[in-house]
Amino acid sequence: MVNFLAPVQALMPLVDERMRMQAANHHPELGAALEHLLISGGKRIRPAVALLTGGMLGADTDRLVTLAASIELLHTATLVHDDLIDGALLRRGIATLNAQWSPAATVLTGDFIFARAAKLASETNSVSVIQLFSETLATIVNGEINQLFSGHGLASRENYFTRIHAKTASMFELATAAAALLSPVHDDTVEAARAFGYELGMAFQIVDDVLDFTGEQATVGKPVASDLRQGLVTLPALNFLQCYPDDPDLNAVLENNRYNNATIERLVNAIRESGSIEKAMDEAKIFITRAMNILLTFPDCPERRALQELSGYIVDRQL
Amino acid sequence: MVNFLAPVQALMPLVDERMRMQAANHHPELGAALEHLLISGGKRIRPAVALLTGGMLGADTDRLVTLAASIELLHTATLVHDDLIDGALLRRGIATLNAQWSPAATVLTGDFIFARAAKLASETNSVSVIQLFSETLATIVNGEINQLFSGHGLASRENYFTRIHAKTASMFELATAAAALLSPVHDDTVEAARAFGYELGMAFQIVDDVLDFTGEQATVGKPVASDLRQGLVTLPALNFLQCYPDDPDLNAVLENNRYNNATIERLVNAIRESGSIEKAMDEAKIFITRAMNILLTFPDCPERRALQELSGYIVDRQL
Repeated sequence: MVNFLAPVQALMPLVDERMRMQAANHHPELGAALEHLLISGGKRIRPAVALLTGGMLGADTDRLVTLAASIELLHTATLVHDDLIDGALLRRGIATLNAQWSPAATVLTGDFIFARAAKLASETNSVSVIQLFSETLATIVNGEINQLFSGHGLASRENYFTRIHAKTASMFELATAAAALLSPVHDDTVEAARAFGYELGMAFQIVDDVLDFTGEQATVGKPVASDLRQGLVTLPALNFLQCYPDDPDLNAVLENNRYNNATIERLVNAIRESGSIEKAMDEAKIFITRAMNILLTFPDCPERRALQELSGYIVDRQL
Repeated sequence: MVNFLAPVQALMPLVDERMRMQAANHHPELGAALEHLLISGGKRIRPAVALLTGGMLGADTDRLVTLAASIELLHTATLVHDDLIDGALLRRGIATLNAQWSPAATVLTGDFIFARAAKLASETNSVSVIQLFSETLATIVNGEINQLFSGHGLASRENYFTRIHAKTASMFELATAAAALLSPVHDDTVEAARAFGYELGMAFQIVDDVLDFTGEQATVGKPVASDLRQGLVTLPALNFLQCYPDDPDLNAVLENNRYNNATIERLVNAIRESGSIEKAMDEAKIFITRAMNILLTFPDCPERRALQELSGYIVDRQL
């Protein structure tokens, strides 16, 4: 367990407990599915961000735990439908739900988790939090639909940043802004919290996209350059494209034109050697610097220091 | 247009407008999909019930229109995922979304409509309405999961009534209870409104299940006994089973054991001739009588008279 969780260490098991409770009194398979998803779940970074932000700003602990559980369940539900759509069989090295269940059961389980996430959001008793929650869900889904319908070839930085906002940063914004909404603070502090979540989330996704190029399969749990293999062009490849607009391998991927394993391997090596990955990391660090600057406007406290550490961890975790 | 809509006639186009607005500023395909779904949508009976109940109890019109749009979108989203799961290519004689789009696009469109329904529910500014909304979504999805995992052979009346509550009556309860929650009334009136929605919804689904046996394919837009063909045993078949527990055709369906078109046709004729359909209609009428009795506890007004007419229409529509 990393250090930055220390101020909310005691609350994290409560968040897990709140999530597990959501399958009670429903079909037993739903409990089994939720248990599987929570065990194979990640580092709970979104609930940690919500708990730390709310702790820093003075939110009521019980409502904060409810919010954190709601956000992690929303994240979980989107992953269930994403993995089904992508036909992904593994996530973090563990079998996905759709690898074991029919598409019908997977769709419905995702729907059920959405329903319970919405229920938890409503239990914060804040209409503003609930509105933000449902707007975020619409943003995430709209982003996936954009990606689905645009497909290969849309290789602009603007498109990339819009996409990672919808996919990742929007949920970090939800975590920080909703935590602020549950706190005794003014609108400008809510806005500052939202902006912090935005910068953190953008950096988080850029680093994720970098790790897709630098990570070892054994660590990341999926093949190197899995995005590129699916025709998805992320920041390292976009930086490379800027320097080498005529690269035949990248253009083959962009045009979805007869590319294979050998194409991808040549391209990954070329991208690694071009300095494009370091350039992407520098961009992630710019987001983190802005996040750190926003943090300095909040009162100094253990939670703020933890969020500073967490921000640093986000850009260092590739090492 | 049937008469019972008269008191809310002017509001129905506002409900449609509120629904259509939900795709604005999102991917254009979402607008096209929503338009298609709204055009192929049904008689808007759920929003009409919400508008009439709220009108009767004195709810604010604008919040009521928002609620009605939210409920119809929730209903629409569940149909999108249902049709995908069942592989249904037609609904009311019009192509379903999944008949034209990939499973991925269909899943995401359903998710998007859920998100917008939740957003609209939150715009009623009532935490109680939002909680009821998300509980109803969980009830509906849990019911579908029960049906998916139990499959053929679960032929008890208790199971049937639980299933039609989850599938249909829960959303009628939402329509009437949420409309009451937006009205200046006490808790016991909210509870009476909910109970009215329950009785109405149960009757509505029983009659739907009867129409599956009596309707002509051209009118209903699907083959006669489509439920039975999928191994789904509804009230007419359950009544038949009570009189003829050893019927080989029904047992073949229940045991999912080599049944075909000829089996179904023999079985439909036997059910039609046994009086089981009339018995099911009598049961629907008992629910409607209870609904009517609850209505009499509300103040007499055009909306109440419309709800009385609507209740009568629900059991008469098979004629």
